[in-house]
Amino acid sequence: MPPPIAFTGRLDAADESLWLATLRTALPEAEIRPLRELAATACAAVDIAIVANPDPAELARLPNLAWIHSLWAGAERLVAELGDRVPIVRLVDPDLARVMGEAVLAWTYFLSRDMPAYAQAQRAHRWVPRPYRSPSTTPVGLLGLGTLGQVAARRLGEAGFPVIGWSRTAKTIDGVETVCGDTGLAALLARATITVCLLPLTPDTRGLLDAARLALMPRGAALINFARGPIVDTRALCAALDTGALSHAVLDVFDNEPLEATSPLWDHPAISVLPHVSAPTNPETAAAIVAGNIRRFWASGTLPGTVDIARGY
Amino acid sequence: MPPPIAFTGRLDAADESLWLATLRTALPEAEIRPLRELAATACAAVDIAIVANPDPAELARLPNLAWIHSLWAGAERLVAELGDRVPIVRLVDPDLARVMGEAVLAWTYFLSRDMPAYAQAQRAHRWVPRPYRSPSTTPVGLLGLGTLGQVAARRLGEAGFPVIGWSRTAKTIDGVETVCGDTGLAALLARATITVCLLPLTPDTRGLLDAARLALMPRGAALINFARGPIVDTRALCAALDTGALSHAVLDVFDNEPLEATSPLWDHPAISVLPHVSAPTNPETAAAIVAGNIRRFWASGTLPGTVDIARGY
Repeated sequence: MPPPIAFTGRLDAADESLWLATLRTALPEAEIRPLRELAATACAAVDIAIVANPDPAELARLPNLAWIHSLWAGAERLVAELGDRVPIVRLVDPDLARVMGEAVLAWTYFLSRDMPAYAQAQRAHRWVPRPYRSPSTTPVGLLGLGTLGQVAARRLGEAGFPVIGWSRTAKTIDGVETVCGDTGLAALLARATITVCLLPLTPDTRGLLDAARLALMPRGAALINFARGPIVDTRALCAALDTGALSHAVLDVFDNEPLEATSPLWDHPAISVLPHVSAPTNPETAAAIVAGNIRRFWASGTLPGTVDIARGY
Repeated sequence: MPPPIAFTGRLDAADESLWLATLRTALPEAEIRPLRELAATACAAVDIAIVANPDPAELARLPNLAWIHSLWAGAERLVAELGDRVPIVRLVDPDLARVMGEAVLAWTYFLSRDMPAYAQAQRAHRWVPRPYRSPSTTPVGLLGLGTLGQVAARRLGEAGFPVIGWSRTAKTIDGVETVCGDTGLAALLARATITVCLLPLTPDTRGLLDAARLALMPRGAALINFARGPIVDTRALCAALDTGALSHAVLDVFDNEPLEATSPLWDHPAISVLPHVSAPTNPETAAAIVAGNIRRFWASGTLPGTVDIARGY
């Protein structure tokens, strides 16, 4: 019998119960226990922890961890808090990529079909048809070409949007014009009617979309941020929306979450605020992936791909 | 040289100029002239008129019309005003079907991804993530399986929504569950989370979605009407939205258009009002189709398919 698997995270009680039940169903041969219930001897035996935004002090109770499996796709907080103390496996869920690809298409349509303008006209009781904008004349810039970005690019391309994709290092993807580096980013921002951010938060991407880069976007362009709040300079974004340089922003992520009730973003007429729902983790598909990774480790000692601490994802 | 083609419609001056220019570019070998500029002798020679919501009294100036080509897809007003006085050809534009298919998918996502609820939460400064609803568990009922409906069904199906399609007479469409007749309509309404109306307005469809039929829809279901206002009983719809029996309606069409500024629909929190923009006619693709139909008539005397007055479309 393998040692118990510790589960820990800063979750509310309902979420913790849901995750424990789902993980136990997916991996019934394991003993999955909340870390806080484990005595010191049990802690010493634990080699795998499943974590959801864990408290580093709690994790420090596990002296013999071989690796930890995060239930989230984003790993920037784990990297910041744990560094190279223990190998980190983040969730790579193809279903998450499908949901994110759908969110990118859905909110791209929200913008390309002028839903914000029609909602505003409705509030003013104004009947104002706007000219139809075809996807073929609406280039979409996609920042980030990992699993999520590639699925999003495919969905947008199938819907007829020309896609320009940017990544840190050069990538080749069928049917997508790809660019990289600072020059590539500037070229993308200058051409895209809608720019969608799917980048991981790293020291390189923090503040990437600052005033200077936002100023490269065509007049009336729009931004969707489904990645992490600090990638965009919120103050510079609001300034660009206030002058009409940009027409609208769909923000699913913020510097602090939940967004404070007093934030001016809630009332900005050119910002759609979403409560981090572009691609929620699905406990069932996630638990199946975690179970598969743990079983492979037990069978062969192989760790799934771990987060590169220097790179940050 | 063929006789001049008369152009007439209740359009504003800018729209009339745009249409005349676009039609003349598409059919440069014809003499296309505004009907009001034609003297009685010229009128007697005219055998084809291109019309956009024409005044029947104006059309009566053309005693030798062989047929008229409407620039709109909907023909119910022409049928009501002209009856069988002259064969009517309505616009069947594959690009229009593409734009409508896109609108159906875009506003289906608007509903399935809970955009109305998030907009409402934003106004209240409330951070309330809602459970993700997968297309696979969100059946969409499609009323109308003509050119527009078939393209919409394909787009919805590709996006993962189970589609139930209803038509007056039985139809078979690959990958779509089809139903017909009163029983079929009742079954569709009882199962669909989102019902989309793309029917032509005819004596049979006027008032089709009345209180009794709306009451068949599952609690919290939503309606999209991209067809014609009078197909839905607006009073019954509002009552169903007021009690929460239905969650939301996206209305692009109304009993009177433009919707009166005093209409209570503008302020209904569960209604999204659109100014008839789901699938606007594209003058360029429309003019090319009209030109092709007229050239075929000149070459072979063949009329394109005309509106069946009894059926109404």
